[in-house]
Amino acid sequence: MKRLTCTLLIATLAMNAGEAQVQNRISIPDINGYKTLQCDFHMHSVFSDGTVWPTVRVDEAFREGLDAISFTEHLENRRYVYDLSISHNRSYEIALPAANEKDVLLIRGAEITRAMPPGHFNAIFLSDNDALAKADWRESFAEAKKQNAFIFWNHPSWDAQQPDTTLWFMEHTEILNKGWMHGIEVVNGTKYCKESFQWCIEKKLTMIGVSDVHQPIQTEVDFAKGKHRTMTLVFAKERTTASIHEALINRRTAVFFDECLLGEEQYLRPIFENAIEVKEIKRTANTITVTIKNHSGLSFKLKKRDHDPDIVYFRDYVIYPHSQHDIAIRVPANKSGDVNFEITNLLVSPGKGLLCSYTLP
Amino acid sequence: MKRLTCTLLIATLAMNAGEAQVQNRISIPDINGYKTLQCDFHMHSVFSDGTVWPTVRVDEAFREGLDAISFTEHLENRRYVYDLSISHNRSYEIALPAANEKDVLLIRGAEITRAMPPGHFNAIFLSDNDALAKADWRESFAEAKKQNAFIFWNHPSWDAQQPDTTLWFMEHTEILNKGWMHGIEVVNGTKYCKESFQWCIEKKLTMIGVSDVHQPIQTEVDFAKGKHRTMTLVFAKERTTASIHEALINRRTAVFFDECLLGEEQYLRPIFENAIEVKEIKRTANTITVTIKNHSGLSFKLKKRDHDPDIVYFRDYVIYPHSQHDIAIRVPANKSGDVNFEITNLLVSPGKGLLCSYTLP
Amino acid sequence: MKRLTCTLLIATLAMNAGEAQVQNRISIPDINGYKTLQCDFHMHSVFSDGTVWPTVRVDEAFREGLDAISFTEHLENRRYVYDLSISHNRSYEIALPAANEKDVLLIRGAEITRAMPPGHFNAIFLSDNDALAKADWRESFAEAKKQNAFIFWNHPSWDAQQPDTTLWFMEHTEILNKGWMHGIEVVNGTKYCKESFQWCIEKKLTMIGVSDVHQPIQTEVDFAKGKHRTMTLVFAKERTTASIHEALINRRTAVFFDECLLGEEQYLRPIFENAIEVKEIKRTANTITVTIKNHSGLSFKLKKRDHDPDIVYFRDYVIYPHSQHDIAIRVPANKSGDVNFEITNLLVSPGKGLLCSYTLP
Amino acid sequence: MKRLTCTLLIATLAMNAGEAQVQNRISIPDINGYKTLQCDFHMHSVFSDGTVWPTVRVDEAFREGLDAISFTEHLENRRYVYDLSISHNRSYEIALPAANEKDVLLIRGAEITRAMPPGHFNAIFLSDNDALAKADWRESFAEAKKQNAFIFWNHPSWDAQQPDTTLWFMEHTEILNKGWMHGIEVVNGTKYCKESFQWCIEKKLTMIGVSDVHQPIQTEVDFAKGKHRTMTLVFAKERTTASIHEALINRRTAVFFDECLLGEEQYLRPIFENAIEVKEIKRTANTITVTIKNHSGLSFKLKKRDHDPDIVYFRDYVIYPHSQHDIAIRVPANKSGDVNFEITNLLVSPGKGLLCSYTLP
Repeated sequence: MKRLTCTLLIATLAMNAGEAQVQNRISIPDINGYKTLQCDFHMHSVFSDGTVWPTVRVDEAFREGLDAISFTEHLENRRYVYDLSISHNRSYEIALPAANEKDVLLIRGAEITRAMPPGHFNAIFLSDNDALAKADWRESFAEAKKQNAFIFWNHPSWDAQQPDTTLWFMEHTEILNKGWMHGIEVVNGTKYCKESFQWCIEKKLTMIGVSDVHQPIQTEVDFAKGKHRTMTLVFAKERTTASIHEALINRRTAVFFDECLLGEEQYLRPIFENAIEVKEIKRTANTITVTIKNHSGLSFKLKKRDHDPDIVYFRDYVIYPHSQHDIAIRVPANKSGDVNFEITNLLVSPGKGLLCSYTLP
Repeated sequence: MKRLTCTLLIATLAMNAGEAQVQNRISIPDINGYKTLQCDFHMHSVFSDGTVWPTVRVDEAFREGLDAISFTEHLENRRYVYDLSISHNRSYEIALPAANEKDVLLIRGAEITRAMPPGHFNAIFLSDNDALAKADWRESFAEAKKQNAFIFWNHPSWDAQQPDTTLWFMEHTEILNKGWMHGIEVVNGTKYCKESFQWCIEKKLTMIGVSDVHQPIQTEVDFAKGKHRTMTLVFAKERTTASIHEALINRRTAVFFDECLLGEEQYLRPIFENAIEVKEIKRTANTITVTIKNHSGLSFKLKKRDHDPDIVYFRDYVIYPHSQHDIAIRVPANKSGDVNFEITNLLVSPGKGLLCSYTLP
Repeated sequence: MKRLTCTLLIATLAMNAGEAQVQNRISIPDINGYKTLQCDFHMHSVFSDGTVWPTVRVDEAFREGLDAISFTEHLENRRYVYDLSISHNRSYEIALPAANEKDVLLIRGAEITRAMPPGHFNAIFLSDNDALAKADWRESFAEAKKQNAFIFWNHPSWDAQQPDTTLWFMEHTEILNKGWMHGIEVVNGTKYCKESFQWCIEKKLTMIGVSDVHQPIQTEVDFAKGKHRTMTLVFAKERTTASIHEALINRRTAVFFDECLLGEEQYLRPIFENAIEVKEIKRTANTITVTIKNHSGLSFKLKKRDHDPDIVYFRDYVIYPHSQHDIAIRVPANKSGDVNFEITNLLVSPGKGLLCSYTLP
Repeated sequence: MKRLTCTLLIATLAMNAGEAQVQNRISIPDINGYKTLQCDFHMHSVFSDGTVWPTVRVDEAFREGLDAISFTEHLENRRYVYDLSISHNRSYEIALPAANEKDVLLIRGAEITRAMPPGHFNAIFLSDNDALAKADWRESFAEAKKQNAFIFWNHPSWDAQQPDTTLWFMEHTEILNKGWMHGIEVVNGTKYCKESFQWCIEKKLTMIGVSDVHQPIQTEVDFAKGKHRTMTLVFAKERTTASIHEALINRRTAVFFDECLLGEEQYLRPIFENAIEVKEIKRTANTITVTIKNHSGLSFKLKKRDHDPDIVYFRDYVIYPHSQHDIAIRVPANKSGDVNFEITNLLVSPGKGLLCSYTLP
């Protein structure tokens, strides 16, 4: 479809119809007094090895209702350098006016792209990407630190760099000790790294989930099938880049990946509780029927856990997005007790879902 | 998936998980102080020649967010009479508890099913369908009238009854004169009848749009492709069956079919105006850019009409559902004037779209 | 949409346009000289507790390209008995002409529906369902056996009957010993039962996967999202009911559930091998690139297994349906060796995927 | 998702998994001894005002199963000239290796982008785009002619250039007379131009349909809803660029737009006839039932035309893609005659569908 600018045609340009933009944000509740912001801090354009002009990433973010994004072009890999000019700040600069117009928060970032160890790292909240282009990776990190960046390790288990094992190298200890690592990607695209998840818990690092998108997003994510990009949920005081920075430093994030949330119990539990409304509880002779409504765009996969055998309920149960359910629990008259279950797709540590217990009325 | 009741198993039944119900109502604005109710007054179950149990129609209506439905089983054609018992009230009776539980308004109806003329008619708001089962169709109509029914002519242009032409027979004049016809189906399923549309306008009859669904609705309507069933929009004082009846008698309806609305200008114009929010108007030297947001689930297809040639704007323009647009209009500085267009998918008579005119600021 | 029969209108009926039927069969290769038939042996209509007329199940099967189906109405639970007549053979009889016309193989079946133990069983390839309606379940089984039925245990882990554990009762041993059980449902709808899987392996029983559909199939399966019903793949000599019976008795089946196949290695391995074509193998200095094409509608999820550390390749890899891939393997010049992986969604026993090993050229 | 090249990491690169490519070509029959090639001769990348790297267009074409594409970057409008180098041949050069690997025919092209008159023209089958960059548009055309290009007028009714009318200027007569115009875009993206259609017929010019895609194709075309890009069907002797050139010069094309084909009867009629297989004709007392199968991915919308009133059949009928239909025709015993209809979505001139007549057996 026609969409041309031409200096010869300035007059006609003005009446060129703008394109429709339809927003489809996934509904995820705010929690604990914070806003739940949907963010993607790792993506590429033609200014490294992506295949789209930077403004496309803003359009994508707008359509998906993302709050914030960051270009993280490879400092060391600009695939199209023969054709493209070279400042590491260009994708940010080009995208900024479009981001402002569409109210997408844009955070300046760059990817430090090295062989393993230490592998790849993203530095975001930078003020000048060019200053990070150094031969020695330690100098790049030092410069990022100097610019007060938030730095995270990308895809530790990437098979191109760690084909058989996911190791923490002594360089990572050095980086951590120097204050050069604040978080780790727990999920990169479709790849979940359980070691990253465990390291974030043990070493008190921020959990990050990213798309690392290179192609047009629709080539990588099948939205028509209900899929979404991997993202970081940031629990921020306000919807500003400064608030995001503060939340990241203070580890208030969760990772939203496929149908799963990964994060600390203090964040996942209120997400579940705020998503679910108990609309009605009906008690007949020996049955309690609980009518619930899921106001979020999240699924919850429940699995029965240890419980009083007199209380009889589902073994496995899926609460679909934006759905209403009547859940029946058989319980002898005059008896109470607890309905216990694990939400297996809300992971508080590798392989361990959120445990919930509801006392019957 | 398991979903069994058995007298032997009453105890276990109670804990049978209820099914998820996800609602996807198309957003259409209220107008003129009325609620815009989404209704389907023509459908079948196994109690005539449909293929589903009556409760399925309630589930379908709930999922689509319909406000009201009516079973209109053929009085004269019960395909499965060898297997099924015979009261003409059964589908209503069977569906009523489910409809109450899901808050779908259920209206008792029946289809008087005769050769042409007079063809098929639906009578709704009946109190006893069995009383309409008469050999002489005039007796059926008289009984419907006696029960204070709202009666409408179904699919006048149905090729099984009018294979080459769409005629109004003298029987229809008789029916109209006797007060036995209040409306006509302008659209039945995917079939639009322009003669019906014209007759409704000329004879002051109520415009009706129906699915006439026989199969499971998903077999007839491809929701994944953004399709919806044909329905009647009823502009009612309240969301009650009584209010619907009053609105139908007073001709406050429009027909929603595919991407089109058909109805009187007094209803279509405020639907458009209430759907569209003008968010911002920016004026530069010779261009006015209007940012609009479509808050409805409707499309609007605009076509330029006669206008001052100094005001230059789109020839054709589509406003998609739930989309935001920047529309640029080139206009000489210090000049004002009108932007005129026809909304070609909001039909106020056969082939004639709603005319709109906006005066530039 | 109009679809009426009426004795008064026989003449007009004839010209009623038939409905379009679009077929979307999932492509799964034949193996070992057998045809791979896609079958669903467990479903319901209004003649027990389903919600559709029997012919709907034939339409559904035709659209999905199924080879064979069986109605298995509950002998003991006919929810609509107030309205419907009572022969247990009716759904078969009603559906048979439609099945013949659409070339869907129809197998007469019934569900013996008892409290646990023994729970629910399907008997298929019956000659008279009514003869199975007995007060004593042992008499029902004996009659099914007498009719030479293939009998399988339904959903052993159904939480309505086994809310906390999945037990094999002494009644099941009795049933097995009497030759009354030939198979077990490993998957019922969306519920996979690992105990069933293990029992089939240990006791040499036939693995069965079924939809157990009660609603219109589209209400239970989201085809637009690429989903399909759970089915049994039957490796049959011919596409006939007799061949299906023979194959079932001889345990030549696999279960197709979500993106998984469950079955014996002797069936799953050739499915994978026949699905994948190696189109080209290119060798450069230290890399072998294998171009493969997946000719099937199946996904294959590969996970690296123990291997020579000098041969470097993917950790996890997904081969999507009908896709082409270039898989790169880094290997030192002049060296050969094996690429080993597990196909984690082709399960040969609970939790154990098919192991594959490819020797590099 | 990770997809990085880096000189430091050459070794790891080799094992980087290739991306899956799933092909979804729309099935359209060959006709008249020619191959029906699906081609798009108008598209943009970042090298003019598109937003994707040239290789993305090859990936898109491969996924859609297109036979041939052409980049037609604006000679006069390179939006990103601040960042990008300037040869007008770059998008072709960059895309060529990818096109060869994926077997997509790539044709070198350029868009001569001028104010109206003469407006925009595409020249394809060029040998050197840079030579066309001239101040005077006549020189650009002359150079294109010299390079033996096939030249067509783009979107004559584009509202940015012809806001109220679609005029043929004297410049177009000049261009035509000089042999500088061989075809016209009848459809550009979603915009159909009936004047172009008429001009092609009257002036013996080649009918062209193009996407003119600027964004990632999925942003402009909703494939999940069954949509496709506008394309030119080329009836070529072989699947080569030379054969395409020959066919274009000899006007053997049709335009495939939305659900419509536009072209000469000599091409549209055999497309319909080759798409439809008559599987069975059954005759009962007064009805003939014709079972047909549509082997193509095209829809056909039939509308009854003048006919013997004794032969009674559908008024309107839609044959969906890849569907099977039973079409009933009521006809008195011992009588024969013709079933006449117009295929309203196969247009042989503006507003005029293909007329068909079938003599009953």
